[in-house]
Order: sequence, then structure tokens, then C-alpha cells
Amino acid sequence: MKFLSFLFKGKSKFGVYDGKNITDLTGKIKEANTLRELISKKGINEAKIFVTKNPGKINIDEIEFLPVIPDPGKIVCIGLNYHDHVEETGRTVEQNPVVFFRVPESQTAHNRYIQKPKISNYLDYECEMAVVMGETGKHINPENALNYIIGYSCYNECTVRDWQQHTSQFGMGKNFEKTGSFGPHMILAENISDYKKLTIKTKLNGKVMQEAKLSQLIFDIPTLISYVSKAIPWKAGDVLVTGTPGGVGFKRKPPVFLKDGDKVDVEISEIGLLSNIIKEEKN
Amino acid sequence: MKFLSFLFKGKSKFGVYDGKNITDLTGKIKEANTLRELISKKGINEAKIFVTKNPGKINIDEIEFLPVIPDPGKIVCIGLNYHDHVEETGRTVEQNPVVFFRVPESQTAHNRYIQKPKISNYLDYECEMAVVMGETGKHINPENALNYIIGYSCYNECTVRDWQQHTSQFGMGKNFEKTGSFGPHMILAENISDYKKLTIKTKLNGKVMQEAKLSQLIFDIPTLISYVSKAIPWKAGDVLVTGTPGGVGFKRKPPVFLKDGDKVDVEISEIGLLSNIIKEEKN
Repeated sequence: MKFLSFLFKGKSKFGVYDGKNITDLTGKIKEANTLRELISKKGINEAKIFVTKNPGKINIDEIEFLPVIPDPGKIVCIGLNYHDHVEETGRTVEQNPVVFFRVPESQTAHNRYIQKPKISNYLDYECEMAVVMGETGKHINPENALNYIIGYSCYNECTVRDWQQHTSQFGMGKNFEKTGSFGPHMILAENISDYKKLTIKTKLNGKVMQEAKLSQLIFDIPTLISYVSKAIPWKAGDVLVTGTPGGVGFKRKPPVFLKDGDKVDVEISEIGLLSNIIKEEKN
Repeated sequence: MKFLSFLFKGKSKFGVYDGKNITDLTGKIKEANTLRELISKKGINEAKIFVTKNPGKINIDEIEFLPVIPDPGKIVCIGLNYHDHVEETGRTVEQNPVVFFRVPESQTAHNRYIQKPKISNYLDYECEMAVVMGETGKHINPENALNYIIGYSCYNECTVRDWQQHTSQFGMGKNFEKTGSFGPHMILAENISDYKKLTIKTKLNGKVMQEAKLSQLIFDIPTLISYVSKAIPWKAGDVLVTGTPGGVGFKRKPPVFLKDGDKVDVEISEIGLLSNIIKEEKN
């Protein structure tokens, strides 16, 4: 079942996509007006029943996508979490997960543009698996951690490489406006038998640039959830972005950077295809 | 004029404190229910007039403080921004501001407790000047940057040192639950003639541990505002936390860390005094 957030006739909504049409769930269940609220109010099961009785009436061509969760309480990103990416960056595997944060405002969505900043020519793609948390929890054991996940989605965690390297901290290079693409929809975790069997790839103008299996994560998803939960509670609708495999543009020979008009796709098997066009920032 | 956010009879409110009582502004001006909304809707001048006509009726002893802005769109933190702190950490001054992010959920408030995590004994104080943004803006010139500020406050940007050093990224060490204390109130920028003349200090159980002038910032506030604005727009209610001077606990000989029952005060001249007790996390 595909949950998504979208704009329809100028209004922010959320619903479920049946492959052709969307059932609008906004305000229909437990007074939830956003997907984050629906998750937080434990309305997913009710939503599944509602959808079977209320087939979609909004055609997919009538909407604009929003980030799957437009307003997460936190977006926890993981760096250097595939061996081939660690190697290509010339770094070494750390003993703990490399954590940094994205602000929700840095997000964009499926079929919307990713913005190439006017002050940099070093915008780069990063395909990543996004995890959406369904439950509040702190000090979670890895053995129980998968139970805290409500769904999965795709993330293109685009990075401005020169700014990422301005200082020791990835900081601003990971938080440019309209660079974190999140979508197109969330697949319920209950519909994925084993996330480690999924494959992830990036295509740039149709050419495969990154490709990996989720089993290749250095710190697996339960470990990541557990680690973060020792510091701060997970809450419903929080997003964990799990790291990118090798093949990023800035470590290729010659390097490849995203430019106006490029089409970049992130695809995860059993999840979906997140597609974006790059657009140069105007004044 | 002192703007603050608070809990009163279990409800989140905001208002203005006259030194004894608080005028409740919640819902009174432009339908703003939070201080962030009031700033965003450009209601500050109207609030000033409202307060002169409506003296405070809530006694300060009846409320619990909240973070000045409980729900900022982003909290941009700056590291290594005073020479004596750069020296004590054994690092070098970077060519660009060192940027990292705090999530709003990591905040706490004046007279509430700062939480010592149960998994670490390395909780440390960091007194910092907090800037509250009043205007949306991108690609801001340093010459105009001060015009984007609506007010100033104190921040105790408490850090879990062992986790800060888990990897190259400060990440989780800067985002433990209830470690970022923000308050007690916001002083309007128009009431501060020159922020560079202000002094900032930390007292631990009454003893001065850090002390500096804001003129000592390596990257001054206009430069910081301008730098970040090249990447992502500032929005009303966003918070910029400008860095801490030398004297932090973990670089003292012997090192000093915060423990259950400690009292830590951050004071900025012309702004106010932010006071917290440390409390050990329970299960």
C-alpha cells in the first residue's frame, strides 16, 4: 500500500495511491491532517480499511507530490555506511554510525525539481533508503528495532560537495534548499519481507551510477535505530536516511556533477522510483 | 521587552514579561498561537502596543518556562567560533564557519532540568548567544544582515563529549534529549545598541567557568547570517546559536563534567540569566 503526501488544488493533503488514483485521507481518520499525524495517532490500520471502501477519486496527474513526510520532527542521516563509498572517499570505517541532520526545509519531492545552487557547481546525487518511524521509543534494543518502523521510501540525499568540505562538519553542504528528495511514496514495512534483499540504484540521464543491496549497509537498520535511540527518542514520522553506496559523482574520474536539465532517478526494488529534474537556482 | 514561551495550567502560551507579571499574548494578535507565529506574521509591533494597554496578570511563579522558540524551523549551530576555544580543543580556525544542526526536540528551558544521559558521564556546558531571526531572506549581504534579527537570547548548548567524538561528525553528541537550554526570554534586537559590547559567561555551582565578549566571535553574526543564507533561506523564528568561548569542562585539567544536582547558569549582559539544574536520566 502506497502512502503519499501531495498538493491538490493548492491544498496539502495525504492519501493512498492504488496505481492509478488516490484516495484522499486528509481529515478522514482520527482527525489527522498529515501523514505524520496519521502515523502518530496510530491510524494506519484504519486507513487500510477506509481505502478498501473508498476507491481513489483523484487522478495521479492532478496532484503535485510533496515529500512523503513534509514535516518530520527530525531527519537523521547516516554517512559512510557502505564499504565501497567509504573507500572511494578515502576515509575509513568508523566504530560508530556517522550521524548528521537535515532540516525539513531542505526537502523536495518526486517529480519536483532538485535545485542546483547558483553559488556552486558541485551538486551531487546520493541514493539512500529512507525509513519512516512509527512508534515513540528510547533505548531500543536492536532485536526489537524493526518493530518501530512503519514504512520505507526512497531518498536522494543531494549534497553540495564544496560546501560539505568547507569544514570538518558536513553541515551546510547537506542542507541546501530543495536538495533532499523524498518519495514518491511510503510502502508499509509489513509489505517488505526482508529489507536486506532490496536493491538500490541511481540513474543519471538513464545511466546507472550507483547500485547496491541493502544487505551491504555497514551499520544495519536495527543498529542505527538502536544507536540514535540512546541519545534521543524516536517519534512517529521521524525519518532515518541510511547512507549511500559507492559511485557518487564527485569521486568519479572525471567527476560528474548535476546540472540544469539533468534527470536523476533513485529506485529501490519493492519500494518505488523517485525521479527528479535538476534546475538551476534563479535570483 | 522580554518575550517568552511558557506553560500555564497545562497549556502552551507565549507573552511578555514585565519583571513581575506576564501579559498572555496567545491568540491575541493576528491569531498567532506561538511566538514563532507572531514573528512570522510581523506582529511584534502590535504586541508592544497591546502590552502597554494590558498589564501582565499571570505571575511569573505560576508558569513553567518553555524554550523561547519551542518549534523553530531550524536551529543552526556554530562550532569553534572563539579563538580560546579553538585553541583548547587543539583544532585550528577554519576558513568557513563550522555549521551543525540541533533538532528542536533536543531543547529544554530556563528553570527546567538539563538531562544527564544515563549512557554517558561526559555532559558538558557551552554558553552561547542565540539569535532569533525575524525575516525570510536568502543571499543576504553581511551589511544588511543585522536587519534580519528580531531578538537575542541565551543558549546552553550542552554537549555529550564522548558521543561528539564517536565519529568525525558532531552529530548525536549535540542532540541528546533535553540538553539544549534556550531562554529565559528574547530581548528585542532594537533594545540592544551593539551586540559586540555584550559579555557572556557560564557559572557552574556559582563559579565562573567561561567568560567572553561577543566582539571575540571569529565569524561575527552578520557573516554567519550571510553564509547560511547562501545555502538555505532564513525564516522567521529560526535560531542561530553562535558558538562557545574557552573554558569548557572537558578541556580543563582535571576535566569537569556535569552531574546530577549541579546548577549551571548562562548569563549575557543586557539579555538575561538562563539557569538550569542537571538531572540524571531515569529509566
